[in-house]
Amino acid sequence: MKSICAVQGVEAAGIKEGKYGLALVRASGTAAAVFTSNRVKGAPLILMQDRIRKGRLDGILVNSGCSNAYTGARGLADAQAMCRIGAECLGSDPERVGVASTGVIGRYLDLSLIRRQCGMIAPRLARSGEGETAAARAIMTTDLVEKHALVRKRTFTVAGICKGSGMIAPNMGTMIALLYTDARISAGQLRTALRSAVSRTFNRVVVDGDESTSDVAFCTATGLRGKPSSAEFASALEECCRSLARQVAIDGEGATKLIEVRVRGAPDERSAAQVARTVAGSPLVKTAVYGEDPNWGRVIAAAGRAGVAFDPDQVSFWVGGGKMRAPMVKEGVIVADLSRAKAAMGGNQVVFELDLAAGEGEATAWGCDLTEKYVEINGRYTT
Amino acid sequence: MKSICAVQGVEAAGIKEGKYGLALVRASGTAAAVFTSNRVKGAPLILMQDRIRKGRLDGILVNSGCSNAYTGARGLADAQAMCRIGAECLGSDPERVGVASTGVIGRYLDLSLIRRQCGMIAPRLARSGEGETAAARAIMTTDLVEKHALVRKRTFTVAGICKGSGMIAPNMGTMIALLYTDARISAGQLRTALRSAVSRTFNRVVVDGDESTSDVAFCTATGLRGKPSSAEFASALEECCRSLARQVAIDGEGATKLIEVRVRGAPDERSAAQVARTVAGSPLVKTAVYGEDPNWGRVIAAAGRAGVAFDPDQVSFWVGGGKMRAPMVKEGVIVADLSRAKAAMGGNQVVFELDLAAGEGEATAWGCDLTEKYVEINGRYTT
Repeated sequence: MKSICAVQGVEAAGIKEGKYGLALVRASGTAAAVFTSNRVKGAPLILMQDRIRKGRLDGILVNSGCSNAYTGARGLADAQAMCRIGAECLGSDPERVGVASTGVIGRYLDLSLIRRQCGMIAPRLARSGEGETAAARAIMTTDLVEKHALVRKRTFTVAGICKGSGMIAPNMGTMIALLYTDARISAGQLRTALRSAVSRTFNRVVVDGDESTSDVAFCTATGLRGKPSSAEFASALEECCRSLARQVAIDGEGATKLIEVRVRGAPDERSAAQVARTVAGSPLVKTAVYGEDPNWGRVIAAAGRAGVAFDPDQVSFWVGGGKMRAPMVKEGVIVADLSRAKAAMGGNQVVFELDLAAGEGEATAWGCDLTEKYVEINGRYTT
Repeated sequence: MKSICAVQGVEAAGIKEGKYGLALVRASGTAAAVFTSNRVKGAPLILMQDRIRKGRLDGILVNSGCSNAYTGARGLADAQAMCRIGAECLGSDPERVGVASTGVIGRYLDLSLIRRQCGMIAPRLARSGEGETAAARAIMTTDLVEKHALVRKRTFTVAGICKGSGMIAPNMGTMIALLYTDARISAGQLRTALRSAVSRTFNRVVVDGDESTSDVAFCTATGLRGKPSSAEFASALEECCRSLARQVAIDGEGATKLIEVRVRGAPDERSAAQVARTVAGSPLVKTAVYGEDPNWGRVIAAAGRAGVAFDPDQVSFWVGGGKMRAPMVKEGVIVADLSRAKAAMGGNQVVFELDLAAGEGEATAWGCDLTEKYVEINGRYTT
């Protein structure tokens, strides 16, 4: 097993029929979730924000193809019905079934489809590589590859699957992520660790700056193995989320290159993250990376509009990729060798390193290049 | 004359040699300017922010091809030298010459080129259609068309030329605009009117969300004709700037359609503008407009992440274009007729109207669709 089924007590299954997929995961334990900060939230999120407060789940049901967002009272009733469908299949209480939906906004759920698919996959629930792969595939929309992460520690394991490719912005969950651990940990510790991990990983991925109505990260702890310290657990969860976050950036709609922006010397971590995300999200930086054009002034210009106080004349800046690391600016003085910079941008990963010389804060953000393919994918999404 | 040379006391000339252009405008009078809020400002802006406080100019010199931004102490000295070159050609004081530069960031000015071009065009300074057209062309970079605006009132005229196509964001001047009037008006009145006009027009244009280091709008009042009230003048200046702002959106890099977003029912004008700009700048909205895909949920989702308080279940929303206006949502209930919405998106102008039902604030923002051509233009800008 390469992800969630490596966690003690987790069984998964999934199905994908054209655009319409359904993933079912059985795992009983303490649970927490982080939701999009978009004011327009999908009906499943409105429901789950309330229910997750009880801190326990027996399983999660996620459909793709329709996000059940902006669907009003009927959408909320549909999300509740989806909980009941999941509960029947799991032999559980609807209040203990997590639901999430991803896909087109402003359409109603096809509950009979979800009921049929759930009935088909429930008997297949298993602790197997097939099960976790089918679940990871089922929740994909424009994703090209399924996303798995696994962090094994001596006494416990953390793992996750997620979907996310476009509509990826830096203000919350930014995707649907289903995280599991067999660590023995309280709902409170889980909530704290999840919030921190999300803020440092999923919240630092920018594909297009649009923020979804349906972003959610769930984490369930089955408690079947060891009892790590809060710090040990938080670190493992963050590592797991970071792996998924990078996979989302790499699989960004139309992307050919991963962009990693490392900022240090900021007034604090928050402002470092702000600069890193602004650079990673800049359309002009993203198109320059696509064209392997060492137009590095765009990186400085993007940093300058991030709303963070620094002195441009003290900044140092490098462009890297593969084993190459080319200095562009040293303490405000241009030292750029454009042919080296262009060479550094030739691989499938481009790293921008900025030292703002304004403090001790540091942070990393991830993004991807902007290509004609992004336009093609998103110009005709519903038609 | 169709723009600045229709204003009493304004003479213009310009030249464009490949990527390198120079515009010279002679006009003596009270003057004001608004600058980018980017922390990384071009050297000419750093210089002019200080000098414009004196409130008088005799002329303005603008070059294209190199923005003289992120060029440190040498860049500042170069900007001062550019003022001296302009002053020699105009027979004026360097302190009374405005300068601006647009083009690649992080390169030094070619002063000998500017000196040569200025010497060539100074004798051509004239109050003529050729002069204003040559000046408007000289400052273009990726612009496809030159941009002129003219507002004639009984006792005075306001006119302007501008450049701007990419790196257009909503946080200040967002372009280089040279505005002129023959109204008799004090420097203080001019400053107030310019700030207000910019905030309602240039600050509401989004092409790609990137904010330039070189955005500036100058306004010079020659005072050779009537003395309007402050309100009359402010209204005419805003009308002139609105015309230029729309031209910038229409000429957005790679654009095929103008997007106009009208928001009403917001808590106040500021929050209405915030929602309008967020929708106009959303990559997912922009690609949907390009593909004429009535994926209207993206408009609601973008509004939801604008940071403005409203109740999604009270929103009303229309998609329009040409003479068509199709209701999509009425007080939170979906009433969308997708085929009508698609038809409304078929022309070269798409209008989204949102009523947030949360107050009396209203605002309009302009943007354009996102196309493969934008990626092509920006992927290989310096190479």
